[in-house]
Amino acid sequence: VPMAPKPNAKQRTTDSAAMQPADEDSLIQLLKHRYPFKCAQLKAGIGDDAAVIRPKGAAEFWLITADMLVESVDFHRGWTLPRQLGRKSIAVNLSDLAAMGARPRFFTVSLAVPSDIPQRWLLDFHDGLTEKGKAFGAFLIGGDLSSAEKHIMISITALGESQNRKVLYRSGGKPGDLIYVTGSLGRSAAGLKLLQDPDSEGRISFRKQALLAHLDPDPRCDEGLWLAQSGLVSCMMDLSDGLSMDLPRLCAASGIGAEIHVQSLPVFPEAATWNLDPVELALHGGEDYELLFAVPRSKRRRLERNYPAAFPRITCIGEMIPDAGKILLVGKGPDQRRRLLPRRGWDHFKK
Amino acid sequence: VPMAPKPNAKQRTTDSAAMQPADEDSLIQLLKHRYPFKCAQLKAGIGDDAAVIRPKGAAEFWLITADMLVESVDFHRGWTLPRQLGRKSIAVNLSDLAAMGARPRFFTVSLAVPSDIPQRWLLDFHDGLTEKGKAFGAFLIGGDLSSAEKHIMISITALGESQNRKVLYRSGGKPGDLIYVTGSLGRSAAGLKLLQDPDSEGRISFRKQALLAHLDPDPRCDEGLWLAQSGLVSCMMDLSDGLSMDLPRLCAASGIGAEIHVQSLPVFPEAATWNLDPVELALHGGEDYELLFAVPRSKRRRLERNYPAAFPRITCIGEMIPDAGKILLVGKGPDQRRRLLPRRGWDHFKK
Repeated sequence: VPMAPKPNAKQRTTDSAAMQPADEDSLIQLLKHRYPFKCAQLKAGIGDDAAVIRPKGAAEFWLITADMLVESVDFHRGWTLPRQLGRKSIAVNLSDLAAMGARPRFFTVSLAVPSDIPQRWLLDFHDGLTEKGKAFGAFLIGGDLSSAEKHIMISITALGESQNRKVLYRSGGKPGDLIYVTGSLGRSAAGLKLLQDPDSEGRISFRKQALLAHLDPDPRCDEGLWLAQSGLVSCMMDLSDGLSMDLPRLCAASGIGAEIHVQSLPVFPEAATWNLDPVELALHGGEDYELLFAVPRSKRRRLERNYPAAFPRITCIGEMIPDAGKILLVGKGPDQRRRLLPRRGWDHFKK
Repeated sequence: VPMAPKPNAKQRTTDSAAMQPADEDSLIQLLKHRYPFKCAQLKAGIGDDAAVIRPKGAAEFWLITADMLVESVDFHRGWTLPRQLGRKSIAVNLSDLAAMGARPRFFTVSLAVPSDIPQRWLLDFHDGLTEKGKAFGAFLIGGDLSSAEKHIMISITALGESQNRKVLYRSGGKPGDLIYVTGSLGRSAAGLKLLQDPDSEGRISFRKQALLAHLDPDPRCDEGLWLAQSGLVSCMMDLSDGLSMDLPRLCAASGIGAEIHVQSLPVFPEAATWNLDPVELALHGGEDYELLFAVPRSKRRRLERNYPAAFPRITCIGEMIPDAGKILLVGKGPDQRRRLLPRRGWDHFKK
């Protein structure tokens, strides 16, 4: 199993070789087995969107997640405003808390910046960070500031609190469960494509939607909390690396597989106006920060009846199947051919 | 007030311009005033060694601290083994918990590594990280892995638990309080000098002590916990950037000053055998990860009688004075001349 990051010249467009997401998965698996810690107050450690602890005497579980944004891998300084970057940095962390149904509460930020970054940049970045955090109930409580040679590095750790000790894990899915996503998929990837190829055509209003989805995503915190409280959901995670990368992770945690129906995907159809394939973006695009979850078939009606209309829509895109690790895509058209879904989310579109 | 990192060619020996520690202090002050969050469950936020939260219903306070190590700024890959680097990475974070008297419990690590880092390196690093954490009661519960263009970046967030809700802050010192440090000062800086100048002379056993102090420091967790529980200490922090940098921070938090007696400093005298000035190292060296704390004069006897003999010694090095921000150094010899202590810890010796 490959674990060390490997440069892959064909897929790279910058000199910074990105790490294959598969490598991180492998490392996580390896660490999970290498350090199988059982310790008091730890409900869940390595391997889910966040770790779950239960402080002695506490009414609630507390969840902790860490995520890093690296310049030239995760963002480009010229494509974003410092304030937007601050907003996105905390948003992607809060998305991990949303994925387990926790309320965001606190966060720390460690920041390494090159010496030519002006003071104004740092202040704008922190403004974005704190305003977005506050909008979702999370407050900056500490951090670290260091120098970096060339690239900005942003490392955030966010803490959330459960409600009524209800937390959703990646594991817990069963064959037959229906698979849902919130919102639409592929909009952020369409925005990234626009940034990568600024000469592309497309209606202005759609372009703005796509760019905002990529540069200033909103985590689905209220939706995640509602889903966790509803008691209707068997497993959940957030979509950060693309459906074709993340769905196998959700399935692996439950030891099952999945079947996705192409025609059900809530794509971003406007991407077609600038010659992108909305289905490809939805499957492999990444950075949607929508929620991916499963619901037992018997609870489908209750979910669809009770899910708040004010939230972004939810869409059933397929179902869990018994075959561990098998992810099938059921095609459009009369023959509905099934094919295996290749894992090419993050690094396909990321660079 | 300067806040953005500034290159300072004269003090740099690598092409990576280090950030002035004063800049981080200024940013912290700015953020504290810019975002004066008061929110439920937060006892203390930005500005101390760790933030303090009180989860709803919890028996204890929980403390959170974040620290980053950047290659070529904080370490050089060729000077250390990956396992040692893992051990040091968690140790410096646990030192921040020790500084407030908390028991280490959990930590997350976000790691960005260049693509040429072998799998072996990652495993050894994690071995060091987890073994050192475990030795002090802290368990790895999550993290993130990303690619970096050239330099390794290690960002850790550590969580600790108070005992009987007793936590020591930087604030709380009063004029007349006696100032103490644990262990000895300047040993780590002597080790760094050896690494920077491998041709220097010196007795082998002393060299090994100094190198280990620099490459594999131990946080003073048991000592910090004991001091917090003792009820004898008015304020505390850990020494990471050198006495001349950190003591002003301790004083600033209490709105007072300090007077340090040169002849009282628990120096590392062996550094003199390779032509270093032990007093300079003790004042400005940095990375000692010893505890710096103050004790009301009336409690001095109780402290010195009860402090466990098994712990590294504690030494009284001076006292707090009323003049806010004034840090005086009382010289050796019959005249005992007082002079202002210049702030030149971290960046003086760091590079």
